[in-house]
Amino acid sequence: MNDVSRKATSHAPIGTHRQTIRVYFEDTDAAGIVYYANYLKFAERARTDMLRDLGISHADMMKRDGLVLVVRRCEIDYLKPARLDDLLTVETAVAKLSGASADLRQRVLRDGEVLAELKVLVVCIGQDGRPARIPDHVRGMLPRVDQRSE
Amino acid sequence: MNDVSRKATSHAPIGTHRQTIRVYFEDTDAAGIVYYANYLKFAERARTDMLRDLGISHADMMKRDGLVLVVRRCEIDYLKPARLDDLLTVETAVAKLSGASADLRQRVLRDGEVLAELKVLVVCIGQDGRPARIPDHVRGMLPRVDQRSE
Amino acid sequence: MNDVSRKATSHAPIGTHRQTIRVYFEDTDAAGIVYYANYLKFAERARTDMLRDLGISHADMMKRDGLVLVVRRCEIDYLKPARLDDLLTVETAVAKLSGASADLRQRVLRDGEVLAELKVLVVCIGQDGRPARIPDHVRGMLPRVDQRSE
Amino acid sequence: MNDVSRKATSHAPIGTHRQTIRVYFEDTDAAGIVYYANYLKFAERARTDMLRDLGISHADMMKRDGLVLVVRRCEIDYLKPARLDDLLTVETAVAKLSGASADLRQRVLRDGEVLAELKVLVVCIGQDGRPARIPDHVRGMLPRVDQRSE
Repeated sequence: MNDVSRKATSHAPIGTHRQTIRVYFEDTDAAGIVYYANYLKFAERARTDMLRDLGISHADMMKRDGLVLVVRRCEIDYLKPARLDDLLTVETAVAKLSGASADLRQRVLRDGEVLAELKVLVVCIGQDGRPARIPDHVRGMLPRVDQRSE
Repeated sequence: MNDVSRKATSHAPIGTHRQTIRVYFEDTDAAGIVYYANYLKFAERARTDMLRDLGISHADMMKRDGLVLVVRRCEIDYLKPARLDDLLTVETAVAKLSGASADLRQRVLRDGEVLAELKVLVVCIGQDGRPARIPDHVRGMLPRVDQRSE
Repeated sequence: MNDVSRKATSHAPIGTHRQTIRVYFEDTDAAGIVYYANYLKFAERARTDMLRDLGISHADMMKRDGLVLVVRRCEIDYLKPARLDDLLTVETAVAKLSGASADLRQRVLRDGEVLAELKVLVVCIGQDGRPARIPDHVRGMLPRVDQRSE
Repeated sequence: MNDVSRKATSHAPIGTHRQTIRVYFEDTDAAGIVYYANYLKFAERARTDMLRDLGISHADMMKRDGLVLVVRRCEIDYLKPARLDDLLTVETAVAKLSGASADLRQRVLRDGEVLAELKVLVVCIGQDGRPARIPDHVRGMLPRVDQRSE
């Protein structure tokens, strides 16, 4: 269902994770299109699976390290609507990695056409509710956007 | 938004709690009607507010008593579809109260017409994950269905 | 992700469709488990993909034939809670097929353990909003439960 | 549940619509807080009810005028998490009104404290899927942010 490609393609920069997501009735609304909040669900699934594919479990981070990754800010542009039964691809890449946060770029595509673009700022939070350094074993594994190709 | 009526009416038996719920885009699907799983959300909102109106906070029960109310079984009949912008009424009554469980009857109505009917078996669970007696202060307050009028 | 197995197994009767579904944050609630309404989403995904695997598109049925499959009744037993990151299997089989309706049995499992069981009555509805005969090309393809093994 | 206040307050600029929204289990996730996509649901409910309070029905616009309001872009800052049982207020104001679009500012508050801030660009779309002028009877009624007070 998903992979972390490290080969450059015409569609996405180096280090981009790709995941396919099917649109079901639950995702659509009475306007016949995917409800606007649900793109954030798709994006979160893709981020979680990117970590999982890298051997990083968010549930383990919560239990073992007392750390949770939370979204601090999100920008989303809706370019074209997705519809029932569509097979979407969500691309995810890390644009910038700081001590306690990661700046992600995500895109939702259908047949190579971009339907939505997201910028997501994720922050690592400790048990005291304050920003905490992203563990090094996580940090080392995250696929980065090739800055030159942006 | 809701009330616990103890007067008999033509619409519902004694002790029935009523709550109004508006249908938004998020509740509908591409068939133009409320998505079938979302009636369970409406029903849970009504159950929670019935408790809240009785001065019982589910969040407090979780924190203070280590108890959580979980749905063990649910039956739902979908009679007519609800649609965007509908103003629904959810009726809730306790049909039977046992030591650790409550058997509820719920109905979703629009302008007095029944759209959906639910039977919901709720069980009280302790921190060990096993059934636990519903606290007496909760038990004493729950509105019961008048058995004779059923 | 899914298959229509026609071999008898110890886990499921002949003709059972199986689909794997991952649990994400969106599916869970503050009690740390999958929210009870979301099992109905999982079940609907599995039913849709069973049709899709058989070459039947619900979206096409809506557009071309003016037919929509709606849930008329649903019973669900919650046996054990699913949790974040769980990889679930949803099994679907047709217990009984009538002119305009199908009686389905569905189970949600984790590592062979049954977490939830559903009985779902699906009705085919025409553009006039009334029951309509399920098209023969759909009818002929649906995997049936071997009645003797029930 | 909501009102369009035209009096200046310390909390919000002139012309701000306010709506109260309760947090239920369905809104939370396994981290114990409101799931990040669900703030967009709250914001959409508030926008819809702002229109409804002004006598404008989105469903009517769709049926009668063939017009639908869609979100073209959304920015959201998550400042503090909302939790189960919280009673939130969503404030909505129109920052800028163009021919076919409206630039909205929304805030989600709990006890006067801002939990999330949104900028939402809504576009009016006709039956051909292209931007269409927002009807004058809608345009005339929308509460504007007092530009000086921003």
